[in-house]
Amino acid sequence: MKSLQIKYDYTNLLAENIGKHGISMNEINNYLELAKTYHQNLLEDRESGKVGFYELPFNKILVEQVDKYVKKNKDKFENFVVLGIGGSALGNIALINSLKHSFYNLLPRRIRRGPRIFILDNIDPEYVCNFLDTIDIKKTLFNVISKSGSTAETAAQFLVIIDILKRKLKNKFIRNLVITTDKNNGDLRRVVNDYKINSFMIPSNIGGRFSVLSSVGLLTSGFAGIKIKNLLKGAEHMLSVCNTDNLIENPAYLNATFHYLLDTKKKKNISVMLSYANSLYYWADWYRQLWAESLGKNKNKNGEQINAGQTPVKALGVTDQHSQVQLYTEGPNDKVFSFLTVEKFRKDRSLPKFKGKYSSFDYLSGHKLSELFNAEMKATEYAISSKGRPCCKIIFPKINEYTIGQFIMLYEIQTAFAGELYNIDAFNQPGVEAGKIATYALLGREGYIEKTKDIFEKEKERKMI
Amino acid sequence: MKSLQIKYDYTNLLAENIGKHGISMNEINNYLELAKTYHQNLLEDRESGKVGFYELPFNKILVEQVDKYVKKNKDKFENFVVLGIGGSALGNIALINSLKHSFYNLLPRRIRRGPRIFILDNIDPEYVCNFLDTIDIKKTLFNVISKSGSTAETAAQFLVIIDILKRKLKNKFIRNLVITTDKNNGDLRRVVNDYKINSFMIPSNIGGRFSVLSSVGLLTSGFAGIKIKNLLKGAEHMLSVCNTDNLIENPAYLNATFHYLLDTKKKKNISVMLSYANSLYYWADWYRQLWAESLGKNKNKNGEQINAGQTPVKALGVTDQHSQVQLYTEGPNDKVFSFLTVEKFRKDRSLPKFKGKYSSFDYLSGHKLSELFNAEMKATEYAISSKGRPCCKIIFPKINEYTIGQFIMLYEIQTAFAGELYNIDAFNQPGVEAGKIATYALLGREGYIEKTKDIFEKEKERKMI
Repeated sequence: MKSLQIKYDYTNLLAENIGKHGISMNEINNYLELAKTYHQNLLEDRESGKVGFYELPFNKILVEQVDKYVKKNKDKFENFVVLGIGGSALGNIALINSLKHSFYNLLPRRIRRGPRIFILDNIDPEYVCNFLDTIDIKKTLFNVISKSGSTAETAAQFLVIIDILKRKLKNKFIRNLVITTDKNNGDLRRVVNDYKINSFMIPSNIGGRFSVLSSVGLLTSGFAGIKIKNLLKGAEHMLSVCNTDNLIENPAYLNATFHYLLDTKKKKNISVMLSYANSLYYWADWYRQLWAESLGKNKNKNGEQINAGQTPVKALGVTDQHSQVQLYTEGPNDKVFSFLTVEKFRKDRSLPKFKGKYSSFDYLSGHKLSELFNAEMKATEYAISSKGRPCCKIIFPKINEYTIGQFIMLYEIQTAFAGELYNIDAFNQPGVEAGKIATYALLGREGYIEKTKDIFEKEKERKMI
Repeated sequence: MKSLQIKYDYTNLLAENIGKHGISMNEINNYLELAKTYHQNLLEDRESGKVGFYELPFNKILVEQVDKYVKKNKDKFENFVVLGIGGSALGNIALINSLKHSFYNLLPRRIRRGPRIFILDNIDPEYVCNFLDTIDIKKTLFNVISKSGSTAETAAQFLVIIDILKRKLKNKFIRNLVITTDKNNGDLRRVVNDYKINSFMIPSNIGGRFSVLSSVGLLTSGFAGIKIKNLLKGAEHMLSVCNTDNLIENPAYLNATFHYLLDTKKKKNISVMLSYANSLYYWADWYRQLWAESLGKNKNKNGEQINAGQTPVKALGVTDQHSQVQLYTEGPNDKVFSFLTVEKFRKDRSLPKFKGKYSSFDYLSGHKLSELFNAEMKATEYAISSKGRPCCKIIFPKINEYTIGQFIMLYEIQTAFAGELYNIDAFNQPGVEAGKIATYALLGREGYIEKTKDIFEKEKERKMI
């Protein structure tokens, strides 16, 4: 399967190729020894069970459970719907978009061979109501995903859905529900126990943004007909590639180090993931959470204020050439680019000749769409790097479960290692508490009402046109 | 219609409210006189006909042409498809997503009352092939949009589509085509003339990113049943609101000035548009192009190198609270936030009670989805601004054609004014040429082959794992 290994190309991150905004190999070499220490730290976190994502590729029992559950239920439902947000949604959205047909839900069932898939990742009232218009709820299986069992948005969706299900299906409503949550704790687990609802378990040492290869992502994948064994095999393969403390041979560690140095020494506070494949675009959204929530931290491990964190940005080739590339080539040199690119597409088409003399069309004829697409990728890489702006490439030989599994593990390890470089805790998210508390206060949740004063006082003196 | 005017709230951009990372009213007042000069410059660009977007709301003839064409063709087709990219696509995508049902293409025709709408804004080979799988091409009307008539991606799509149409429909193929391009120039106009194909005209003084209220956006809107008259009325209204050289009373000029000062004096090189409405999310994508391509410029009008341009970022509330807010509140203070928010949603739903004692659900019951949604918006604004990070709000009383039209004009004028502040040409895009030329070279287009050397020499020494 070596030929199916994704490759990491850092040519245009190097100062020798792009000039002073790049990083020299000397600067990288300064981290050779530190990398060994950081590798050891990560190994300890893994072995002590503090950090669990490394073990997900090996969970054969879960694969069997998912397969069994899917086999039993797949043909009973027209729709499979995830109620979840953040880490419960982003991986699922990316899996479906990368491994299924671009217009999956519009295809007839006989071609889909499975239920339509919806990931309801917001509580916008119009969006939720429009969703309810669209589906026949009796023919819909809802997978309620929340590790804590208390995520406000997922709870709200759950209240809406369970109320309708109960009214339409009476005491049979539990057939249309499966719950994915912590093994022992939280209100969703209590609901599982109280009502005897089918459930899956999210291990307590897996954070939301590292959970795509757990039950969180695998159940949806199963319903969509994605080969979850190959997904895990790919992840396992990348884990073995990255199981070296030699910085120069470890793509996850090396890319983390480049990004860290570009951020802290070269003022690249923006990390653009530029996907040259529609199917990979949503992995850029997944990356946004992984990178932002893991590294966007106020304080380092010593309690010193650092306000760390690159801002991840998603972009799509070639589409964004007509939107962002003007800025990328002429604006401030404040970004590092990661191109996602594909060598062999699953489908392709030749550009026919059009009768008549039209010079804007003629040069295209005879080429394949993939040739035009990848020529534009190469041209954009050239345009950006020749202006001295750092960019790297993640090259997919093709897109399938095996390469997607690799990609997931590559970026999870890269993020964990980046946490070591910044000396921050990459696995918590203390900054979201303030907003949660303010929401509780505004909704009058018991014990939080005092807090509203602060917020409403701000209300008084709005400046507005 | 005053009650339907969108409002601009800059409370939390002010230093007096958020501290040293904000802008004081004194700093704004320094621009009062300059604003009068800039207003005069823009007026001259408008009156001389150099810049045309201001006149789009008044094109009653176009409205009639569109209405007539739509009436005649709407019921003949199952699908209406835009072939176009960048400015030919982004406004259309945003219009459909903001003014139609969230799952429009999945609804049955009797509810839709119009054809399904697809905006094919990429040439990814899998995406294009999957699209062709999905539709019945004989029952599909293609609107080919390119102002120059030579956009490579649109030309490639056109070659694929016209070849299939000709094979399936023989000499009747022109019935399934309409072309939107320059009045006189370019190969698409030549095709219109050679084959007598229906066409619409893009005025020569309207750039792609300012074209949504021209034929580019109106024809799609017409087929989707969007009330284009109200769209234009909204734009006209905002034009009148912003037709003052008094900086303090002009929301477009004022927001441009705040953003300019935050970028250049307070190091906010990132501008996040955070939409608290799924339906408005794609306007953030439209804004990305408008802001990035207009202001991302190497040189100012005096030819001095400045590398100007904030990086626009799109984000979605509440979804991105579970992805980006950790970074937004604890990471570097390098962003200005623009919240898009809605006072009254078109649909809403109450959160029912769930039997049993579950404290994570109970506090939600009795509230409406909109209350939870907007409480989270308010809580997030509070969390971000209380950490001293600048944010403003664009408040939609509700979402309809009239308010969307206002929004479009507001941001177009804001962008034009920002061009004056940066002293750059906001209406060109010289930086995309390098990539185009390299693409031509790689595809062997006549006259460009020499250029390939450069690109292929770079190929030789890749650094890869």
